[in-house]
Amino acid sequence: MKVLVINCGSSSLKYQLMNMENENVLAKGLVERIGIDGSVLTHKVNGEKVVIEQPMKDHKVAIGLVLDALVDKKHGVIGDMSEISAVGHRVVHGGEKYASSVLIDGKVMEALEECVKLAPLHNPPNIIGINACKELMPSTPMVAVFDTAFHQTLPEEAYMYALPYELYTKYGVRKYGFHGTSHRFVSMTAAEMMGKKPEDIKMITCHLGNGASLAAIKGGKSVDTTMGFTPLAGVVMGTRCGDIDPAIVPFLVKEAGMSIEEADALMNKKSGVLGLSELSSDFRDIENAAKEGNKKAQLALDVFDYRVRTAIGTYVAALNGVDAIIFTAGLGENSASNRAAICEGLTYLGIKIDPEKNGQRGEALEISTPDSKVKVFVIPTDEELMIARDTKEIVESAK
Amino acid sequence: MKVLVINCGSSSLKYQLMNMENENVLAKGLVERIGIDGSVLTHKVNGEKVVIEQPMKDHKVAIGLVLDALVDKKHGVIGDMSEISAVGHRVVHGGEKYASSVLIDGKVMEALEECVKLAPLHNPPNIIGINACKELMPSTPMVAVFDTAFHQTLPEEAYMYALPYELYTKYGVRKYGFHGTSHRFVSMTAAEMMGKKPEDIKMITCHLGNGASLAAIKGGKSVDTTMGFTPLAGVVMGTRCGDIDPAIVPFLVKEAGMSIEEADALMNKKSGVLGLSELSSDFRDIENAAKEGNKKAQLALDVFDYRVRTAIGTYVAALNGVDAIIFTAGLGENSASNRAAICEGLTYLGIKIDPEKNGQRGEALEISTPDSKVKVFVIPTDEELMIARDTKEIVESAK
Repeated sequence: MKVLVINCGSSSLKYQLMNMENENVLAKGLVERIGIDGSVLTHKVNGEKVVIEQPMKDHKVAIGLVLDALVDKKHGVIGDMSEISAVGHRVVHGGEKYASSVLIDGKVMEALEECVKLAPLHNPPNIIGINACKELMPSTPMVAVFDTAFHQTLPEEAYMYALPYELYTKYGVRKYGFHGTSHRFVSMTAAEMMGKKPEDIKMITCHLGNGASLAAIKGGKSVDTTMGFTPLAGVVMGTRCGDIDPAIVPFLVKEAGMSIEEADALMNKKSGVLGLSELSSDFRDIENAAKEGNKKAQLALDVFDYRVRTAIGTYVAALNGVDAIIFTAGLGENSASNRAAICEGLTYLGIKIDPEKNGQRGEALEISTPDSKVKVFVIPTDEELMIARDTKEIVESAK
Repeated sequence: MKVLVINCGSSSLKYQLMNMENENVLAKGLVERIGIDGSVLTHKVNGEKVVIEQPMKDHKVAIGLVLDALVDKKHGVIGDMSEISAVGHRVVHGGEKYASSVLIDGKVMEALEECVKLAPLHNPPNIIGINACKELMPSTPMVAVFDTAFHQTLPEEAYMYALPYELYTKYGVRKYGFHGTSHRFVSMTAAEMMGKKPEDIKMITCHLGNGASLAAIKGGKSVDTTMGFTPLAGVVMGTRCGDIDPAIVPFLVKEAGMSIEEADALMNKKSGVLGLSELSSDFRDIENAAKEGNKKAQLALDVFDYRVRTAIGTYVAALNGVDAIIFTAGLGENSASNRAAICEGLTYLGIKIDPEKNGQRGEALEISTPDSKVKVFVIPTDEELMIARDTKEIVESAK
């Protein structure tokens, strides 16, 4: 079975065609600047890169070109579109409706529309992508895999904010959490690496990329996570502030003279390590600057590491103990120095990091010492594979 | 030496006259509805209560009546105002200027005025109270004791928000923390009870009242605290939401149609356990309702306990271990059931609570079992005594 995985942004689209017999990637690629001058498709097969520059007025045109590339005589990997047995779509927000992935039908599409008010930036391009695929591949089954679904197991005391109760009933204001597909993937992989069932272990997964979140996972279920009603909450990120005193928002409006839209944009796009370092949202730039003695860059790293370290502490309390801590995503997978700095202050848990193992890159591996009381892993995340697996499972069981 | 302690609110005033030879309270009382119809002074001496109802147009009139009551032939405790050697004033916000209590002079008054923009609700009445006292007792030395001072030892990574750096330099947006006098008092008392120097221990102090905050204290110094730029941040309180996804504020304005002032008031006055329970901000009411099966009341308690428990976990990570946890203030001192619920999920730290000791009330006591790896204390806070001690020390050393 071959599964096409689609992840639509507002002007971009990532795709991956997978052979589910061996979980190999047959081809993958990225479309950028959809609906904007300079649209471009970058298609990758067997290490080769094909770049196709041509106008793409909308996602339907873009997906059409992706399908063309997949069946192309020269760069293609399949003979015919009918070889694609199913399409798995990444969808950001499933609200409280979906605690797992789902076969897309009319009812699901209605639910996705309802969730637009909760994710006004993210769900509309996801919906556009699904509709475009449906037009081009009307008989191919499609599955929606939600960023929020894995966190639908949060207990009430973790997902309810201490706000007037009717904000929850009337507007759906609660913690949803995001990055669920990634947290689920790495937690399952870690359980396998430990030779244990997810049911038997307590884990904290740290998805640290330009967006960053942690999840507390008990018995295979997410019981808390740092992102909240939106992906702004929690730890410090590339350009997002994470948790702050919420009274700062009225202060920005009333004392600093910002509009509410400006305050919102400031927190989402001008804050995080970018705001603190006044330099870059890219951790590599910041690490380099810090090494050269840039104090604000060092401060940005210190604040980031402190917030992740203490968030781990928060979740050790939420879980009443922890068996494994997992680092993943761009920074989590690649920055040995951040991992070391985060774990340095966690010796009270009996955590010991092996500096040599921590220095390795690229593969899933345990970086704690054999006598460490908590196992620490670096596990490259693979949301596309998780989406493809869900898609296969759902389509097969629906037959 | 006799010290008068004054704590001025916008329309209220608490006072306490202390004999510092033995730290006994000679008299104390409360003035309510200053500048409002129905002003009333309640003066307490030796268990007797004197209620004086008469118009008080401002704080100067109120303080005048307090001084009259203190020297009154019948209910008074001193022969003459000159017996009051010094006045200690509680001041909410000392900004970054004051890391400890200070003898009040013209420069200090200027600094307090500067801090008004950081604490627009709290510092003005504090200033009014000081000025009124100065007019009535022009030759008596006065000391300012700040709620923020104890937390001025926070390291940069704990007090900086990941917002654009210039919000800090231009507007002073950072974590200040509050309840410092209480955290300091109970942490010093706990160290004494442990027979240790504060320098040698790691403590987490939980000031849980209608306002609530936790502090992480290492070597006698506050290294982190849950309240932030304002007293809204941190754990859930009587009517305050504590930390939430900050993106909820723009949502309330843009989607729920509130003004920024309404959103601010909602978070400060209509949230917390009041907002969740839709019943009361008083934990006693909520505990009673929960016992009778009220689900929203139970939810409010569960959310409160969960947030305090996980905040303890956060600070165990900030301290890399903990020797003692201290509960204080209204709820912290009086609710055995909340203390039990909070500690129940902390067995990973080796914490064991003795249910019998936990059931006792009124006195400073250790409520953990002898084999508990972390000592847990209930310590009644006494901010007035702390203010009086600082006042005595500063006035004596200034001589």
